[in-house]
Amino acid sequence: TSDVLAGFGTTIFEVMSKLAIEHQAINLGQGFPDEDGPADIRHLAAKSVEEGPNQYPPMMGVPELRQAVADHDRRFYGLNVDWQTDVLVTSGATESLAACMLGLINPGDEVVLFEPLYDCYLPMIKLAGGIPKFVRLDPPNWEIDEEKLRAAFSDKTKLILMNSPMNPTGKVFTREELELIAELSIKHDTYAICDEVYEHIVFGQKEHLSLMTLPGMRERTARIASAGKTFSLTGWKVGYLTAAADLTARIAKAHQFLTFTTAPNLQRAVAYGLAKDDAFYNDLKSSMEAKRDRFRNGLQRIGFTTADCDGTYFINADISSIGFDGTDEEFCRLITTEAGVAAVPCSAFYQSEGARTNFARFCFSKRDEVLDAAIEKLQDFF
Amino acid sequence: TSDVLAGFGTTIFEVMSKLAIEHQAINLGQGFPDEDGPADIRHLAAKSVEEGPNQYPPMMGVPELRQAVADHDRRFYGLNVDWQTDVLVTSGATESLAACMLGLINPGDEVVLFEPLYDCYLPMIKLAGGIPKFVRLDPPNWEIDEEKLRAAFSDKTKLILMNSPMNPTGKVFTREELELIAELSIKHDTYAICDEVYEHIVFGQKEHLSLMTLPGMRERTARIASAGKTFSLTGWKVGYLTAAADLTARIAKAHQFLTFTTAPNLQRAVAYGLAKDDAFYNDLKSSMEAKRDRFRNGLQRIGFTTADCDGTYFINADISSIGFDGTDEEFCRLITTEAGVAAVPCSAFYQSEGARTNFARFCFSKRDEVLDAAIEKLQDFF
Ligand SMILES: CSCCC(=O)C(=O)O
Ligand SMILES: CSCCC(=O)C(=O)O
Repeated sequence: TSDVLAGFGTTIFEVMSKLAIEHQAINLGQGFPDEDGPADIRHLAAKSVEEGPNQYPPMMGVPELRQAVADHDRRFYGLNVDWQTDVLVTSGATESLAACMLGLINPGDEVVLFEPLYDCYLPMIKLAGGIPKFVRLDPPNWEIDEEKLRAAFSDKTKLILMNSPMNPTGKVFTREELELIAELSIKHDTYAICDEVYEHIVFGQKEHLSLMTLPGMRERTARIASAGKTFSLTGWKVGYLTAAADLTARIAKAHQFLTFTTAPNLQRAVAYGLAKDDAFYNDLKSSMEAKRDRFRNGLQRIGFTTADCDGTYFINADISSIGFDGTDEEFCRLITTEAGVAAVPCSAFYQSEGARTNFARFCFSKRDEVLDAAIEKLQDFF
Repeated sequence: TSDVLAGFGTTIFEVMSKLAIEHQAINLGQGFPDEDGPADIRHLAAKSVEEGPNQYPPMMGVPELRQAVADHDRRFYGLNVDWQTDVLVTSGATESLAACMLGLINPGDEVVLFEPLYDCYLPMIKLAGGIPKFVRLDPPNWEIDEEKLRAAFSDKTKLILMNSPMNPTGKVFTREELELIAELSIKHDTYAICDEVYEHIVFGQKEHLSLMTLPGMRERTARIASAGKTFSLTGWKVGYLTAAADLTARIAKAHQFLTFTTAPNLQRAVAYGLAKDDAFYNDLKSSMEAKRDRFRNGLQRIGFTTADCDGTYFINADISSIGFDGTDEEFCRLITTEAGVAAVPCSAFYQSEGARTNFARFCFSKRDEVLDAAIEKLQDFF
């Protein structure tokens, strides 16, 4: 299956980050915060790295973290999770996704997924022999076309892979949308793989709902989240997955041969972090929301129209709204090299043929002064 | 390809470690040291976790570590390695191996590999659609049958996957053996994936030779090693791979979708570690050798004959030499539950049909008092 991978280039994040470094541009391309998460979590990890032991933890993850994930899922979603059988710790959400694809898909199985989509989804689906069925969402509203979604499901559908809050759109799926997905998933007896890494980064009156909480979905859903996004520690690569015992076991079979385990000292610190009080989770939300507002206002002052954004680190700006008539790739290269601000073309997240957008994705999980400087540079340039 | 994985059980290491815990047995099954590696390496990692940044490093690994790996490979093997293109950091050697299999094998490609083999090799080969061609080595001498090895290669061979120093045998491949492998690899134009995680754990007059250093092999070999084994920090899951630029690029394509990156703070501490002086590397060798001697002597006092062991953490004891006439699985269960010492049946590492041994693998990378206590328990029992 190596020919499958040869067809994929280096990820757009790597490409734009490199270009940003070359041109000393402010990097609003790749999505990561520029301030690390809680000092107490880092301190705990540091202490445990220094003191040890630093040997293999159990393949499923350290018990403390599996328990903390189960507690977290009960606290936030009312889910009843058995930590011994229903939780798997992986090397980031990326590895959870890879393990789901390799552990669940057989060649010829169909996989329903929404465009725009995060860049690791399609390669892993294809590597596993799956056949993607795209349902396209478009800016500025990212609405689901019910008929198109219905049409994407068939007898051959093995799973639907979704992401809410959704990168790169900033969309938070509504209850109605999730109910439709649940209806189709149940009707066609599919799995649902839910990448929910931005579960705690949701703005305003919006609320993150987990598909797993809908009737009939508990046993067919795998819910994936990560310390990277929840604790602003994207480099730790500690991800976790919640699913029914039999589903978890199948996914763990792939995990055990992909990485086997993840640093136990980081795992234990994440376990501590997940138990943080509501104030922590509320602060995360409100600080990210303030950043979105600050950056969106800046874009609008320059004259950009922006797409809806109810969560995640990302907001999409309409490049045609300021009269730019090249592609969004050209726009992103231009502002990186000439204005000194890097962004990612939204088109890079569409895979079905001919799909293009006029939107550029900016990451706003940065310090206020960085956001302000980026706006100033863009303002000067346009 | 999920049906492929369904055919594999939970790894023998997990199974025996669980049984060991249930029976409070001394765990000489799963291979890991019971003392963490250098305090200065751990301290550096701790400091960098505490101070940050803890965000995504480059997909290929932090520059410091890629440089350190290049320097290490020059220092120990005289290899000329360009750190920018020829080195990839992964989440443990396990992920390197997974990325090699997924990144290089197409369905129908044949893969030559030696039995007994480490447990993650076969599932990943099969997942990638590869067809294994086994060459069997047997205790107590683990010799390669030249004719069998020649016969395993064909026009369809995509790669040979080998492991020297070799788990579970403790075999260190000789120059003659490597020359034969190189000859066949070149003749059939294959890749060679060399799992060399025990590169610095070699005893007596034996020396670890890397296949990559043989004429014609530099461009077709991927050399895999890991901080887990070199610094006795198996939980860190920091692995690294050296290969020619084009080969590294292909493998990195799989890596970027499997985990994308590995904790940068641990990576930087490993970079520091790799530059340690000869005294460090010599101490690692001599302390492990002393453990092998201590434990082997103990086994022999009880009456066990042991297989050759020139490196790694492992030694294999002949269970028939003390008159045990059940299988090695039965033996390992028995001593775990009844004698209070866990080991792993060597047969678990053979996959070709009907392959069995009378040997039990013991891990001796433990404190002296633990090794002594294990010998005492075994002595009391037999
Ligand atoms: C793994 S690098 C990409 C980070 C990210 O989530 C994004 O930019 O979308
Ligand atoms: C990844 S757990 C197995 C550890 C090991 O290398 C072994 O016991 O052979």
